Amino acid sequence: MEFSSKLLERAVNEMSQLPGIGKRTALRLVLHMLRQPKEQTIALSEALQAMRKDVKFCKSCHNISDVELCEICSNPNRKEHIICVVEDVRDVMAIENTSSFKGLYHVLGGKISPMDGIGPHDLNIETLVAKVKQGTIKELIFALSSTMEGDTTNFYIFKQIQDYKVFTSTIARGISVGDELEYADEITLGRSIVNRIPFETSMKL
Amino acid sequence: MEFSSKLLERAVNEMSQLPGIGKRTALRLVLHMLRQPKEQTIALSEALQAMRKDVKFCKSCHNISDVELCEICSNPNRKEHIICVVEDVRDVMAIENTSSFKGLYHVLGGKISPMDGIGPHDLNIETLVAKVKQGTIKELIFALSSTMEGDTTNFYIFKQIQDYKVFTSTIARGISVGDELEYADEITLGRSIVNRIPFETSMKL
Ligand SMILES: [Zn+2]
Ligand SMILES: [Zn+2]
Repeated sequence: MEFSSKLLERAVNEMSQLPGIGKRTALRLVLHMLRQPKEQTIALSEALQAMRKDVKFCKSCHNISDVELCEICSNPNRKEHIICVVEDVRDVMAIENTSSFKGLYHVLGGKISPMDGIGPHDLNIETLVAKVKQGTIKELIFALSSTMEGDTTNFYIFKQIQDYKVFTSTIARGISVGDELEYADEITLGRSIVNRIPFETSMKL
Repeated sequence: MEFSSKLLERAVNEMSQLPGIGKRTALRLVLHMLRQPKEQTIALSEALQAMRKDVKFCKSCHNISDVELCEICSNPNRKEHIICVVEDVRDVMAIENTSSFKGLYHVLGGKISPMDGIGPHDLNIETLVAKVKQGTIKELIFALSSTMEGDTTNFYIFKQIQDYKVFTSTIARGISVGDELEYADEITLGRSIVNRIPFETSMKL
């Protein structure tokens, strides 16, 4: 691409660093910004900077938060003896949206995936195991996507905690195998939480 | 969407103002930024701000530029008596990429489209007509897309300048180089037959 402006070129190059945004799409987006009021681009860039500089990860559940302990973890009405284990922040948002779950979360930050070089120590697994060892947790709900990586991760965690008195379950699969949680409709997703089954049962299926 | 962080929510909302970027895509992009080094998001937002604040439109051809008169208009090796009329900056880039044109450009900034509320006075038509009236331009090449709006715009400009001594042309429409005849739409195929060129000319291309 031949650019008539270094400023334009730099903006397009930076935008096209984002996943799924090629050079052509980046150019289209950037030219759109030039047609909108200056204030809109300034608001966007300030919002991105503020988020990247100041956003925190909850010290207990690793969910994205503006404060040290997220709103869910610090809410006295949530049941702290039941923890739903999810891959990422979008899964917390998806489950919260169903209003079917009143416990706490634990955000792993991904799944074990040797192919992608992601091992157990790259995920927030140790803090989860530590919570279980404290003995106050009664149930862990595995809500990872039912892919091979998800199953591997569930099983890895299960092995770490099986000697402690904690009931493990997985969300019921009303959703098709291989589907991402965040794209499930909320009724299906809500039901799959209500109808969760013991993890050991799920391994026999 | 329920956000666990106002900073995250604001970033997603601003990103989803961009055309073709829904809330889900915006969230995916913003979460990606959180996984990358801080510097990358800062570089992106600074590039967008710098572009939006400092980018100029060439005072002669309206192309995007870092200076008052763009590199093409100020290049003494370009033929200033031949002007290629295009819709937007991307068309300039596409034609420059072919290295087949050594004249200057005139960027209209769109097409006449009553349906979208875009009239002649919303486009850079007056400055084009003024250039023609100065009498130094020998040829105008219309390189707008061949839609009804493109044809309307061509015709509107043509009527404004037809009393002045300037040759007008449109870029050839035909079958793409390498394309199979059987897959071409019939209008394109029809035009490529009507607008056929001497074989000996084609051999020189
Ligand atoms: Zn938390
Ligand atoms: Zn120019």
